Amino acid sequence: MGQSTASKVETEVKQQPDKANVLSLPLERLQADRDPHSYERWLVAKLMQMAGSPPVRFRLWNNEVIEPEQGEARFTIQLNDPKALFALVTNPNLAFGDLYSAGRLDVEGDLPELMATLYRAVHQARESWPKWLDALWRNHNPRSTGLAEARENIHHHYDLGNDFYRLWLDQAEMQYTCAYYERPDLTLEQAQLAKLEHVCRKLRLKPGQTVVEAGCGWGGLARYMARHYGVRVHAYNISKEQLAYARDEARRQHLDHLIDYIEDDYRNISGQYDAFVSIGMLEHVGKDNYPALSELIKRSLKPDGLALLHSIGRNKPMLMNAWIEKRIFPGAYPPSIAEFMEICEHSDFSVLDVENLRLHYARTLTHWMERFGSNEQQVTAMYDEHFTRAWRMYLAGSIAAFRAGSLQLFQVVFSHGNNNRLPQSRQDLYVFPAAPEAE
Amino acid sequence: MGQSTASKVETEVKQQPDKANVLSLPLERLQADRDPHSYERWLVAKLMQMAGSPPVRFRLWNNEVIEPEQGEARFTIQLNDPKALFALVTNPNLAFGDLYSAGRLDVEGDLPELMATLYRAVHQARESWPKWLDALWRNHNPRSTGLAEARENIHHHYDLGNDFYRLWLDQAEMQYTCAYYERPDLTLEQAQLAKLEHVCRKLRLKPGQTVVEAGCGWGGLARYMARHYGVRVHAYNISKEQLAYARDEARRQHLDHLIDYIEDDYRNISGQYDAFVSIGMLEHVGKDNYPALSELIKRSLKPDGLALLHSIGRNKPMLMNAWIEKRIFPGAYPPSIAEFMEICEHSDFSVLDVENLRLHYARTLTHWMERFGSNEQQVTAMYDEHFTRAWRMYLAGSIAAFRAGSLQLFQVVFSHGNNNRLPQSRQDLYVFPAAPEAE
Repeated sequence: MGQSTASKVETEVKQQPDKANVLSLPLERLQADRDPHSYERWLVAKLMQMAGSPPVRFRLWNNEVIEPEQGEARFTIQLNDPKALFALVTNPNLAFGDLYSAGRLDVEGDLPELMATLYRAVHQARESWPKWLDALWRNHNPRSTGLAEARENIHHHYDLGNDFYRLWLDQAEMQYTCAYYERPDLTLEQAQLAKLEHVCRKLRLKPGQTVVEAGCGWGGLARYMARHYGVRVHAYNISKEQLAYARDEARRQHLDHLIDYIEDDYRNISGQYDAFVSIGMLEHVGKDNYPALSELIKRSLKPDGLALLHSIGRNKPMLMNAWIEKRIFPGAYPPSIAEFMEICEHSDFSVLDVENLRLHYARTLTHWMERFGSNEQQVTAMYDEHFTRAWRMYLAGSIAAFRAGSLQLFQVVFSHGNNNRLPQSRQDLYVFPAAPEAE
Repeated sequence: MGQSTASKVETEVKQQPDKANVLSLPLERLQADRDPHSYERWLVAKLMQMAGSPPVRFRLWNNEVIEPEQGEARFTIQLNDPKALFALVTNPNLAFGDLYSAGRLDVEGDLPELMATLYRAVHQARESWPKWLDALWRNHNPRSTGLAEARENIHHHYDLGNDFYRLWLDQAEMQYTCAYYERPDLTLEQAQLAKLEHVCRKLRLKPGQTVVEAGCGWGGLARYMARHYGVRVHAYNISKEQLAYARDEARRQHLDHLIDYIEDDYRNISGQYDAFVSIGMLEHVGKDNYPALSELIKRSLKPDGLALLHSIGRNKPMLMNAWIEKRIFPGAYPPSIAEFMEICEHSDFSVLDVENLRLHYARTLTHWMERFGSNEQQVTAMYDEHFTRAWRMYLAGSIAAFRAGSLQLFQVVFSHGNNNRLPQSRQDLYVFPAAPEAE
């Protein structure tokens, strides 16, 4: 996340009416009024067992309730038609999100907490899955992130419209990446500005220096750097919508003489800079492109320069959840920490500092979801009910993934291997609060 | 480094008198009085070329000088006999240290700086080496680090005698690992205590907690933790000499009720602790044992516990220098940063914090070498001239390796993947200075 097509999401969803749009189908085709067969009850029990017996009850289309085998249920999953059950059993990773989006599956209880409970239970249970099940339920490889496909991928998500993101991102600098809650009581705005400040401090920016940013989103970091550190920034992005906003905002803040927002792929970055920074783009780069990214940073960074990559990551290599990759973030792959380090090893970089902000992302997403929740009517008016439900699920599932530890957030600072002009310690990051006072 | 046999070093050196002890050989066997042949002059030039043409002149056994092809020489390497030249050409990684130790090779100019210059030049040059040369000069695989061999390996280095290490390590807590110079003007004693404090802070120790330490050296960290944090420590080591010192010192400081110094291999650690810590042992563990180490930490760490591994590392996988592995640290292998992370990935740990203290180790070693230099007469009286020269070369070469970036120092903090009781930020590491005031 960090830097796009409602229409695309809609289209994909609408192309599969029997899976995704219950409302568009005649009820008899979904058989939502018939009694469940006994093998359907068995399937529900088996599904729960395979998912590690979470404290969840099922309510079927005829209002029949199936309680968990052990313990008390804390959540209810409602299945609105028999085919929803079969979709879920065949490919739960993909179907859970699709069915929820389509209103064929409903949830009672806190959605992020249910999802975190499911993630934790499945994480444990999958170790004892038979091979065929692991193969059946496996997430697929992410889409290509070649030059042309990357444009498609980014357009799919980040060009949904600035008006949409403005409804629920911070009002300070439209940051669509993990914030930094140096104190737990910070507002979203404070925590996003604290993130920008924390990143600038890690890069030890000095006035007059030059910075290149790969994947600049709505341009907030570039403006923060120019405003507070007096540096010149070349900021790359392939999302037209975001760049239009970024340029307007830089002009409004009288910072346009310090910032070049460049509509181009990060692979076409040229020049040498005192700092290389990329916040929330690595997730979209794709594993095959890691060596090339590493070489790009190598040639773009001055001998004494510092580089910072901020990305969602993993504790071990794992494919992106199928639904997220298919419906929300095409081409996304968060690297494991060792894969992340291999990007650095490839060019003999010296890793100076790694910080994991996992729980900060859970909190950021919680703030986003609260605001999204207050604006759902508007979102539905802009798009439709499916879209709103899909995004609710995406935000809830992401909160859950960070809470359950299936996603991490790594900030990695590194330098050329032979650079000896390094910060003595990390003390200077913590001398003053990074967040501004509350307004 | 962190936790054994003068006699072993001596023995190994003495077993190869023609390579290692020029003084014990009749001069005519070394032909140190004959004029060089023209192909020997050619070999010197070729050797320099293959080493990346560093600013070094050679003075041969007949005092003939060979200047570098380009630029001005900043250092002189003196070869005292023709066979020294052949040894150097055949296997420079091993021979340079051996010849220096034996007094068959001498150096004019600052030894650490010469070594750093050579490392940097060779690092660049080796990319264009022909394959046969790369194969000829390659460092070999480290010795085994199985249970029995580990004892041998550790005894070889760490049981050289406490009196020896006392001559040049800090007088605060006999730390034989990288210090933490939070300010550049700290004394070695202050910086070593600052390191201990920094580690305790990273582990967020609280009174009454329990800690297990794998490879405790002379026991300084365990005592520091007990003294300043009121925790109970189980500290493992297989070096008898070190443990004897550690126990005496704990009794002297009235801390023996809080610390169990256990003479056993880290692989036999039992129990569950609030913290797992290991400072400077991972270098001796060996790559084959990483999965087992990871599993050991997994079962030794309470659900909410924090683990810290502090180790010499690399920017990319590379074998230890042959001379260091053979003469100084048998079995040593510093992991690359990605290999280090794989230890964490193996057990689904969540990496929270990585800090690279590379230049802190260069400074620590410089402080050690200054003290060692002031005590060389005593060292020679305790062992012999060979030993003194070998250790001088080891310290100088280590300074050089950290300065040139061929070695790194990683401190890595991690937790179980599902632990959500994590520190909010790293601010608390920096609230007060970690070092005590100067005495």
